[in-house]
Amino acid sequence: MIEFTSRQKKIIEIVEKSQPITSQDIATLLKVTRATLRPDLSILTMSGVLDARPKVGYFYTGRPHVNLIEQQIKSIRVEDIMSVPVVVTEEMSVYDAIVTMFLEDTGTIYVVSEGILVGVVSRKDFLKNAIGGIDINKVPVAMVMTRMPNITTIFPEESIWVAVNKIVEHEVDSLPVVEKLVDEGKEKLKVIGKISKSNMAKLLVELCRE
Amino acid sequence: MIEFTSRQKKIIEIVEKSQPITSQDIATLLKVTRATLRPDLSILTMSGVLDARPKVGYFYTGRPHVNLIEQQIKSIRVEDIMSVPVVVTEEMSVYDAIVTMFLEDTGTIYVVSEGILVGVVSRKDFLKNAIGGIDINKVPVAMVMTRMPNITTIFPEESIWVAVNKIVEHEVDSLPVVEKLVDEGKEKLKVIGKISKSNMAKLLVELCRE
Repeated sequence: MIEFTSRQKKIIEIVEKSQPITSQDIATLLKVTRATLRPDLSILTMSGVLDARPKVGYFYTGRPHVNLIEQQIKSIRVEDIMSVPVVVTEEMSVYDAIVTMFLEDTGTIYVVSEGILVGVVSRKDFLKNAIGGIDINKVPVAMVMTRMPNITTIFPEESIWVAVNKIVEHEVDSLPVVEKLVDEGKEKLKVIGKISKSNMAKLLVELCRE
Repeated sequence: MIEFTSRQKKIIEIVEKSQPITSQDIATLLKVTRATLRPDLSILTMSGVLDARPKVGYFYTGRPHVNLIEQQIKSIRVEDIMSVPVVVTEEMSVYDAIVTMFLEDTGTIYVVSEGILVGVVSRKDFLKNAIGGIDINKVPVAMVMTRMPNITTIFPEESIWVAVNKIVEHEVDSLPVVEKLVDEGKEKLKVIGKISKSNMAKLLVELCRE
C-alpha cells in the first residue's frame, strides 16, 4: 500500500538496473546531492525495497519485509494512551445515566458494582430504549446494559495493536481497560480506563507529527 | 515515541562508540549473523538514528528525521477508503431517521436536498431530542440536525492525514465526503461518501498487516 514518490521510484529503477550501486552514483545519475537523496534512501531501505551494504552499495530486494508501523503500534501500550472512564452504578436510572453521558461528553459509560465491571451502555443502547417507550426515569441502567461476559475488555499492559484489532473485529467504539482481581476465589475485573476509536484517531495524528 | 528493541538499543550504543562501523563488525560484537541484523539496521536507518554510507559503514546521527507513517498516511486519499454514506431527506420524521440509523447500523446520517448536503445528524443529536420530550413522530429531521455551514467536510482527493486531523480537531465521529458543484452561480456540496473514526481504526489494522 505504501506509495513512493516519483524520485523514490526512479531510484528503485536505477538500483534494479545497476546494482550494487553507491549513493554517490545514484546522486550523480539523478543530478542531485547525496544529502538530498538520504531521506529517500532511508525510506527505501527501511521499507525493504532496497538493501544497503556498507562498502558495497545498494541492492534491489524487491519487496518490503519490515513494517515500521507495526513495530511502533506494537510498542505502545494501552495504558500509555488510555482515557479516564465514566462509570455509573447499576441502580442509576436510564435518564440520569443519559444526563451523565451528556455532561461528560462521552459515547459509552461503564456500569460497575463496587468498582467491578458488570456492564457497558452506549448511546445506541439508550436511543433504542428511549424510543422504545420505556419509562427512562424509573428503569435502572442495569436493565438496558450489555452484561459481562458479553463485553470485550483489554488489559493495560497489552499493546495498542491488540486494542485496535479488538475494536475493529468486535465492531465496538471502545474497550474497558481492566485489571484482574481475585476475590473469594473468583476472578473479577476492575475498570481502570477506557480506550476508544477517538484514542486511535489521536494516535494517528501524533504518529504523523513526530 | 518509537520504542526500540533491546538489540536495536545495543546496536545504537555500539555505533555511537565506534562509528563508522560495518554491519559485519556490529554482528561480530553481538555474536549474531549479518542476516539477523538486517531488519534492525533497516529500522535504525529508516528512523534516522543511524546513517548507512556504502563503502564506509554506519554512523550515529542521533535523531529521527524521516517519518514513514506520515509519508504513508499522506499518500492515501480519502476516496481510497471512504464508506457509503447513509442519507435521508429533510422532511423525514426523527422517528423514521432513527429507524434508518438502526437498520443501516451507522452512527451518523447525512441530510440532503436533491443530493446536496444540508445537514448532519448523529445518535447524540437524536438522544438529546428523544429525552427532550419532542414528538419524534411529527418533528422532521431538519429540526434537529446540524446545518451547513457548521459542518466540517472533506474532498475525495484529500489525504487521510487531512481527514484524521479534521476529525480530531473538530471532535466529530465522521466527515461527509463531498464534491463541489456550481448551480446558478452558487457553490453546492454533493455528498458522495463518508469517512469515520471506524475507517481510521480499520486503516491502522491494515497498515500493521502489510
